Amino acid sequence: MSTGRTGRRPGPSNTRESILTAARSRFAEVGFDAASIKSIAGLAAVDPALVHHYFGTKRELFVEAVALPVDPAVALAPLADAPLESMGEALLRTVVGIWDSPAGAGVLAAFRAIIAGGDESLLRTFLLDVALKGVRERLDDDAETRIALVAAQMVGLLVTRKILLIEPVASMSIDDLAAVAAPTLQHYLTGPLDSA
Amino acid sequence: MSTGRTGRRPGPSNTRESILTAARSRFAEVGFDAASIKSIAGLAAVDPALVHHYFGTKRELFVEAVALPVDPAVALAPLADAPLESMGEALLRTVVGIWDSPAGAGVLAAFRAIIAGGDESLLRTFLLDVALKGVRERLDDDAETRIALVAAQMVGLLVTRKILLIEPVASMSIDDLAAVAAPTLQHYLTGPLDSA
Repeated sequence: MSTGRTGRRPGPSNTRESILTAARSRFAEVGFDAASIKSIAGLAAVDPALVHHYFGTKRELFVEAVALPVDPAVALAPLADAPLESMGEALLRTVVGIWDSPAGAGVLAAFRAIIAGGDESLLRTFLLDVALKGVRERLDDDAETRIALVAAQMVGLLVTRKILLIEPVASMSIDDLAAVAAPTLQHYLTGPLDSA
Repeated sequence: MSTGRTGRRPGPSNTRESILTAARSRFAEVGFDAASIKSIAGLAAVDPALVHHYFGTKRELFVEAVALPVDPAVALAPLADAPLESMGEALLRTVVGIWDSPAGAGVLAAFRAIIAGGDESLLRTFLLDVALKGVRERLDDDAETRIALVAAQMVGLLVTRKILLIEPVASMSIDDLAAVAAPTLQHYLTGPLDSA
């Protein structure tokens, strides 16, 4: 998904690549929120306007910099409308739906590459500052702990279902997986921590 | 831990390596339980007695084949004595204790290498047939589902705490992590599935 955006003329590939390299470096170093387009442009030694011209918004730049196969703002849109009291199930259904979709292979490839070594901070800022940001903002107390535990459960399900292929989790329908695992996510989101 | 076993004279390294290669291949193909020393010896074109001579038991061979930094039978021994009704906490404390110990770096390196691509089936058979086998045998109904969910939660905590370093999970004491996450493990082990 790094080329072919309609209506944009690709610039010299070395400029594009310089910007993407600078973006990966800044996002990894300071996280999504703190990385400004200006600082990325500075690192790439280009005008900030050129970054916007090639990549659009900061989120769109991030999507291309980490080679995401889907735009999280689009793919995770259903979560914005989900009530907090059923967010666990909405999160599981939406995210597992992405893994099981044609885009899932790209998600998996990106995850494997990151775990193999290197860009952990990119995945961390993606999870916390992009993918789960909207959910986190709706939590009251202990938001950091709750989101970290949600991330842990989702990452574990990804590895179990899509990489290690541990049955029955690997072959379960999304309905069945939601039945057994969504209550855990809901507990982490809104339940009393420190108790069963 | 692949050399220096007291009282054993190392054989020609190509024989040792042939056996380890054959062992990895068989464990990956059919799993720990179904892979016999005889079939591994056959694949390596050596006498089964030689496998025992170099590596001891099948479990010891497995430990060396997958380059485990600890022997799970020793490291997980506390679980055998834990009552089932507090197994969630025992499991979390024991396993996170290994990750946080000096042996943790080796565990992490092995995990990263497997997720990077290749030997998923080795990690799967390790989790199901070696590490969690004793726990699984003590579960009544839905043992496969329960163990798969436990594996998902533990793998997610490993990635969150030790690789992605997501706070506060990354820096929490084992006590604090047990307080928030052990109830989930206990729920997966003995709670009613399909409900909150």
